[in-house]
Amino acid sequence: MPGPSYDVVGIGNALVDVISNEADRFLVDHGLVKGSMALIDERQATDLYGAMGVGTEMSGGSAANTVAGVASFGGRAAFVGTVRDDELGRVFAHDLGSNGVTFAAQPVVDGPPTGRCLIVVTADAERTMSTYLGAGAALGPEHIDPAIIGDAKVVYLEGYLFDSPEAKEAYRRASRTAHEAGGKVALTLSDSFCVQRHLDEWVTLVDEQVDVLFGNADEVQVLCGTGFDEALQQLQGRVEVAVVTRGAAGSVLVTPEDVIEVPAERVAHVVDTTGAGDLYAAGFLYGYTQAMALADCGRLGSKAAAEVISHIGARPLVTLSRLL
Amino acid sequence: MPGPSYDVVGIGNALVDVISNEADRFLVDHGLVKGSMALIDERQATDLYGAMGVGTEMSGGSAANTVAGVASFGGRAAFVGTVRDDELGRVFAHDLGSNGVTFAAQPVVDGPPTGRCLIVVTADAERTMSTYLGAGAALGPEHIDPAIIGDAKVVYLEGYLFDSPEAKEAYRRASRTAHEAGGKVALTLSDSFCVQRHLDEWVTLVDEQVDVLFGNADEVQVLCGTGFDEALQQLQGRVEVAVVTRGAAGSVLVTPEDVIEVPAERVAHVVDTTGAGDLYAAGFLYGYTQAMALADCGRLGSKAAAEVISHIGARPLVTLSRLL
Repeated sequence: MPGPSYDVVGIGNALVDVISNEADRFLVDHGLVKGSMALIDERQATDLYGAMGVGTEMSGGSAANTVAGVASFGGRAAFVGTVRDDELGRVFAHDLGSNGVTFAAQPVVDGPPTGRCLIVVTADAERTMSTYLGAGAALGPEHIDPAIIGDAKVVYLEGYLFDSPEAKEAYRRASRTAHEAGGKVALTLSDSFCVQRHLDEWVTLVDEQVDVLFGNADEVQVLCGTGFDEALQQLQGRVEVAVVTRGAAGSVLVTPEDVIEVPAERVAHVVDTTGAGDLYAAGFLYGYTQAMALADCGRLGSKAAAEVISHIGARPLVTLSRLL
Repeated sequence: MPGPSYDVVGIGNALVDVISNEADRFLVDHGLVKGSMALIDERQATDLYGAMGVGTEMSGGSAANTVAGVASFGGRAAFVGTVRDDELGRVFAHDLGSNGVTFAAQPVVDGPPTGRCLIVVTADAERTMSTYLGAGAALGPEHIDPAIIGDAKVVYLEGYLFDSPEAKEAYRRASRTAHEAGGKVALTLSDSFCVQRHLDEWVTLVDEQVDVLFGNADEVQVLCGTGFDEALQQLQGRVEVAVVTRGAAGSVLVTPEDVIEVPAERVAHVVDTTGAGDLYAAGFLYGYTQAMALADCGRLGSKAAAEVISHIGARPLVTLSRLL
């Protein structure tokens, strides 16, 4: 019997990033919390975009960035998410396709436009994101096609989407479908505020469905309701592997048997940290689906993250298989 | 009596650039001539975009880049060009506005979408452009508003638009309107192939209407039908000042009395030459409209060009007034 067609299928928000460089003052003036992701409505998006300087538009979306990275390493990847039949939707689809990712979705033909993430990059290279979900919010359980979700080694879920009841149901259905087919479920917590908003449901999802958990220090502490060291202890055994990223301090891989520290890759000049976590997950999941040792998976994650933070934009600019 | 409201009003194609990095082989495979600009239709645009890798979208358009640069230096600038009422049209308008440029146009509400320029950047940092004019081709004499064109120190015309009879008529009307109001007319030849296509009309426009002429070595040789040295001689006296750009070899300013050589600004690492000529013109015209000495105008042009070729995209990433 042949194995699954896909190494990783990602499910998440289909977004085009709109990136501008601004002074710290801009964050204060617009009530933005540095480093965070806030959901905004169409009106807020119009106002904020109007205040932002000259923009660069590049495809984004957390899980979409990750599967683009997996494909760039040479993995077989697909993405599930919803766009409108508009220009930004075509840009999003084009950029997935040109990375070799199967875009397993038909555009929705009415309702809000394709979603966008307004990203302000400050002089310290930190990114602050305001997301107008647009058509991305249409994702629901009806988009979970067992023929695709059941044909993956790993189904990768993006926490950012975990706000609407339909998206939560889609995630539960995807998790069950993956496990029934013998696949693994990976989840990234994405944002500590999002974890806080839906803590009980997150805990249930993690404990019942998740095999590979990604989060940064803030996110795992909120999930566990403890300090950092206790969170690491608590995660040991709760999932097959918990991957805790810590920026320049590297990452920690927690399994029932081991705690493995992985150093960050050195970067000469950090330009824009957007996508760091997404590409770390790409490197890790590429290694994981190729059955590499966990420490090697972590090292690939560090390398991919280092590439993406050395330039503007959340998708790799080089073919990541060169890093192997 | 107060002076004109605008230092520079640019007229040209309203385009959003779609930029991807490709190997030289890509140019060969798609019949593209390195360094050139080719007009393509919607079908060709769809095919070429489909073949291009992950893209970055940034506002472009030659004259639009120039007026954005003038405004970034602190000059008062406006732009005349046509977009559709679609996402890319809104991106184009936003980016002009956030540079402080008055966008003197209402979007057209039917017909083709906002124009785009598909730009392939090869490893040598050279850019090869394929332009689908889209709504930009709707520009005609009816868009030449005397209240704006007659209220500028300099009206700047982009040669790329000089293909349709309506655009040519718009340029003639703009030139007459500017001169009647006491303003100057500047023109960039833009592309040697475009000059070749409409040589007689170019010659008439230059000799009857143009005060400040911009062109590179290829373009002025085609315009003059001679070698480089003879072209410089021929231009002496034909216009108030001819500005001939020569890439890393700097530029030459030709007036009836003088031939002034201006060195190029040194650039540590050339990333993408898109917009070099546009930003040279921005620096030059900013100085010119502030009544600086011609050699100083040229130096500002060199500095602005150096900034724009040191990164991806054809608009400045820093406030150019810092270069003053």
